[in-house]
Amino acid sequence: MLHILFFFSLLFSSSHASVQDFCVANLKGPDTPAGFTCKSPKKVTVDDFVLSALGIAGNTTNIIKAAVTPAFVSQLPGLNGLGLSAARLDLAPAGVIPLHTHPGASELLFVIRGKILAGFISSANAVYLKTLKRGDIMVFPQGLLHFQVNAGGSTSIAVVSFSSANPGLQILDFALFANNLPSPLVEKTTFLDDAQVKKLKAVLGGTG
Amino acid sequence: MLHILFFFSLLFSSSHASVQDFCVANLKGPDTPAGFTCKSPKKVTVDDFVLSALGIAGNTTNIIKAAVTPAFVSQLPGLNGLGLSAARLDLAPAGVIPLHTHPGASELLFVIRGKILAGFISSANAVYLKTLKRGDIMVFPQGLLHFQVNAGGSTSIAVVSFSSANPGLQILDFALFANNLPSPLVEKTTFLDDAQVKKLKAVLGGTG
Amino acid sequence: MLHILFFFSLLFSSSHASVQDFCVANLKGPDTPAGFTCKSPKKVTVDDFVLSALGIAGNTTNIIKAAVTPAFVSQLPGLNGLGLSAARLDLAPAGVIPLHTHPGASELLFVIRGKILAGFISSANAVYLKTLKRGDIMVFPQGLLHFQVNAGGSTSIAVVSFSSANPGLQILDFALFANNLPSPLVEKTTFLDDAQVKKLKAVLGGTG
Amino acid sequence: MLHILFFFSLLFSSSHASVQDFCVANLKGPDTPAGFTCKSPKKVTVDDFVLSALGIAGNTTNIIKAAVTPAFVSQLPGLNGLGLSAARLDLAPAGVIPLHTHPGASELLFVIRGKILAGFISSANAVYLKTLKRGDIMVFPQGLLHFQVNAGGSTSIAVVSFSSANPGLQILDFALFANNLPSPLVEKTTFLDDAQVKKLKAVLGGTG
Amino acid sequence: MLHILFFFSLLFSSSHASVQDFCVANLKGPDTPAGFTCKSPKKVTVDDFVLSALGIAGNTTNIIKAAVTPAFVSQLPGLNGLGLSAARLDLAPAGVIPLHTHPGASELLFVIRGKILAGFISSANAVYLKTLKRGDIMVFPQGLLHFQVNAGGSTSIAVVSFSSANPGLQILDFALFANNLPSPLVEKTTFLDDAQVKKLKAVLGGTG
Amino acid sequence: MLHILFFFSLLFSSSHASVQDFCVANLKGPDTPAGFTCKSPKKVTVDDFVLSALGIAGNTTNIIKAAVTPAFVSQLPGLNGLGLSAARLDLAPAGVIPLHTHPGASELLFVIRGKILAGFISSANAVYLKTLKRGDIMVFPQGLLHFQVNAGGSTSIAVVSFSSANPGLQILDFALFANNLPSPLVEKTTFLDDAQVKKLKAVLGGTG
Repeated sequence: MLHILFFFSLLFSSSHASVQDFCVANLKGPDTPAGFTCKSPKKVTVDDFVLSALGIAGNTTNIIKAAVTPAFVSQLPGLNGLGLSAARLDLAPAGVIPLHTHPGASELLFVIRGKILAGFISSANAVYLKTLKRGDIMVFPQGLLHFQVNAGGSTSIAVVSFSSANPGLQILDFALFANNLPSPLVEKTTFLDDAQVKKLKAVLGGTG
Repeated sequence: MLHILFFFSLLFSSSHASVQDFCVANLKGPDTPAGFTCKSPKKVTVDDFVLSALGIAGNTTNIIKAAVTPAFVSQLPGLNGLGLSAARLDLAPAGVIPLHTHPGASELLFVIRGKILAGFISSANAVYLKTLKRGDIMVFPQGLLHFQVNAGGSTSIAVVSFSSANPGLQILDFALFANNLPSPLVEKTTFLDDAQVKKLKAVLGGTG
Repeated sequence: MLHILFFFSLLFSSSHASVQDFCVANLKGPDTPAGFTCKSPKKVTVDDFVLSALGIAGNTTNIIKAAVTPAFVSQLPGLNGLGLSAARLDLAPAGVIPLHTHPGASELLFVIRGKILAGFISSANAVYLKTLKRGDIMVFPQGLLHFQVNAGGSTSIAVVSFSSANPGLQILDFALFANNLPSPLVEKTTFLDDAQVKKLKAVLGGTG
Repeated sequence: MLHILFFFSLLFSSSHASVQDFCVANLKGPDTPAGFTCKSPKKVTVDDFVLSALGIAGNTTNIIKAAVTPAFVSQLPGLNGLGLSAARLDLAPAGVIPLHTHPGASELLFVIRGKILAGFISSANAVYLKTLKRGDIMVFPQGLLHFQVNAGGSTSIAVVSFSSANPGLQILDFALFANNLPSPLVEKTTFLDDAQVKKLKAVLGGTG
Repeated sequence: MLHILFFFSLLFSSSHASVQDFCVANLKGPDTPAGFTCKSPKKVTVDDFVLSALGIAGNTTNIIKAAVTPAFVSQLPGLNGLGLSAARLDLAPAGVIPLHTHPGASELLFVIRGKILAGFISSANAVYLKTLKRGDIMVFPQGLLHFQVNAGGSTSIAVVSFSSANPGLQILDFALFANNLPSPLVEKTTFLDDAQVKKLKAVLGGTG
Repeated sequence: MLHILFFFSLLFSSSHASVQDFCVANLKGPDTPAGFTCKSPKKVTVDDFVLSALGIAGNTTNIIKAAVTPAFVSQLPGLNGLGLSAARLDLAPAGVIPLHTHPGASELLFVIRGKILAGFISSANAVYLKTLKRGDIMVFPQGLLHFQVNAGGSTSIAVVSFSSANPGLQILDFALFANNLPSPLVEKTTFLDDAQVKKLKAVLGGTG
């Protein structure tokens, strides 16, 4: 009986050899619009699907008193092609994740500790704002400006997930003030005053 | 100046009226292959994007010593069409989330408390098994059999996210033993013994 | 022979009755994550696929000296479900389309008249900037901040197309200053000065 | 034990109530770009997933000596949203399925009986032509012109599947000659002679 | 005239050179989440789109008295990226295709010969069961457990198609008993008895 | 403060390094079903997103008195993976873009100069026909036969966009008459007369 079933096993194996239930990213290989090329299935281990980095508090001793620890496809290759990723947010008292967008993903936030005031703004300029407590979840639809602010007296922690293995992250202040986009263009396309633009360019290291 | 900008605002508003950055589910309306029809944008509030139910521990006084609290589109209508959802897992000591699949989604698990032994099995019958501690995340590729077992002495908690607003959940034991699928068919298609099938059918309320 | 072929025609028609090569939007019906429900094929005419509105210059006598005339699914119901739409840009001398994003679409701009300085900013904060002349096209990848400024001495015109029938449009200044998002929150999440925020709120009609 | 498990069952059932593993078409409801709205899961039976019509030979006593029997979503509502459909081809001796395209699907043909000469033409105008025997399968990539001709002395039968629940079917001759497209336009856009166009218009019932 | 049209042909050919109506798999190249890289169009022949293997009866002299002959992208490279594949099922008398899932595809079964009892189980644990005769087709929605059993006295044959070029195949018994998943874990996550697990592990060659 | 923010910048940059807002085609690398592999982000410049070729009139001194200038991914690598492309149409007096399909994309046409008679034919053989003037736009749903004819006394120009970076282009006459598809097969699958087929084969350089 064993012998016969083994034959059956071999029969199926011709198809199994090519079956790809997953496509663990070969991060050294080329990227494509659908994700990285696949690591050879034979070299895939459970560690390609597991990441411990989100268990460690991010360093919040910075101007925003906050930290973002990503678990995108670059950190967790098993996410490749699966349309999912995650990140950990640490918000010290008065900490803030500034206004930003994820160009290619919606976001789902789960509060693990503390209180977080979160909000997003729609194309119709409507504001959706809520103070979240431990255990609350909130959805941020794809591509819209949103932010998170610590709303309690102690450190708040959240874990967020995204509908893409590579959601992208465009922080408004960095996009405006931390590069070489000429100040007159920033002013013309934002209506911000010259002094304001130059002040923030100085702080964030922008030129022009 | 205000007057002129207001004019500008009106100009854009003709397009805004029809812009749908999101499509909050009208749960009383019809469902479609892409999700529910949309609630009128005028009736949408921030509460359509927020859910508190995952902050409450599930009741684990049952045979599996575990509980699953879903945050799918039915519980959180703002997820509609966004390709994301979540759930909370509570695993009392010796608790287990039995073997199951999500037919339409990959899963990402984040351990909030305790230790969890998690695993999945590929089409090639390879086993990917890991004991996860607080802060660890693990990916479960779409449609594959997987499970979670409490690996510590106290209650473990995890939050999981899915790459679909409606991931589905097919629990192996329920599929086999908790319905009217005739025992001879279960036995013929699983090679399980008649006594085993009837024993579990009795426990799980199956007939035939 | 005619008779026989007619029979053949009838034979196929049972399938044709249900074939939907297109799904013209029933704008009075419900919306879904994949678009509007379909108008009855029998009521569809060529005019559901044609729009003349982009042939008319937009009114640029406003603060931005520019106008955007959309041809999204609401204006052109035949676009429903096809992953395409368009708009016309009119930029009077010194006109500007301020920084904005399309949360759900990439954009392709074609300059019909004049010169336009266009740019977008990536997640890595790199600036991609170019002065475009008549006949030039430029791509703006999905969800990224971008802008267009008249770079010539006379009116410039462009036609843009989008990779969605409903691309959305989030204008940065309107998102920040034209609604009831409290000034302290704007300041905290953008690092802008209070005076700057209040000045632009006053101009754009924002409250709080 | 039964009692406890029943409780467990109820626990999960809150999510199950909304789980849609499938979306059987409500053919009387509205259509959407993603398919028809879903029939209530409570009214779904196995017969929504089963069709017997392909077991019956199509009537080939017509000019093309062939018949196409579709199993699209209109005939088999369980296909809705699943990206699959099928059809049966009957080709009497000398029978032919004329040049046609499926605007929204690729096709896979399996020969059940007889011999079939099948071919498709690429955008680069390359011809891919093969005489298929019983058991052979052939792929026809999406949207390309293709045909099937009986290549044996007796009736040939094939079953085809499509990568869409609603693949569409545009038969070249019908598109050109069986409607009211004015003859001068047909001639101008095809380079066919006036006599040829009018002859086929007469045969196929076209006007103009 | 020929000369001029030839010029026209050359004009278009600059675009044709890059047009990819299809992407025949280069099976020796890397795989990606969207499929294999493409074989050079110049090396593509009709044989990349044709396969004869399904014309040959599978060997059913095994414990399940059945055989599955796949025509996935590995066997038929022309399927790459087209969202379609196929397989042939041979079921000798009393033959059975045991409970299994396709993690990434829905299935459509067409009975060519004999009678087949087929069924699938939904997330809501409902059973959809039907005895199919020659010419019947049945749909199995993505990711759900299903099976096929010969319901007649002679060999039954079916051809199945899938909504993916690489549907995957997870056979329940192989996933549970034919690998190194420790018996205590199998028992804990399935509620099966230790004796039952060990018996089937012995038969199917599992360890642990 | 600068120092601290710089730290913050570095913190984020670990994720930025892997973020792909876009995937500019490496045209020398392999193609995949989802598009070309990506050029290294470090080598990407604004010129990867800009093309000037559509600003130049196509040469219309040919039999169709028309020209198509494509801006597909091969000409504009920044389009890779974004689901968009474009082309310019030049139609001299009496010029015509013959009947053709785009197997993988819908089309949106914008008339820049002159008058164009455009039409498409549905699977139900309905004709959608309209004379378009400057500024008019018209939609052509995916995969359907369509054409454009100059309807004025002077040169007409249009810019078209497609819902794919690589829409494909199958010109009916070229598919039928400009290759080695044997004349008897053309005649059998189109009902065209032998003389007509041979005449056009001679003109278009077809053989067989």
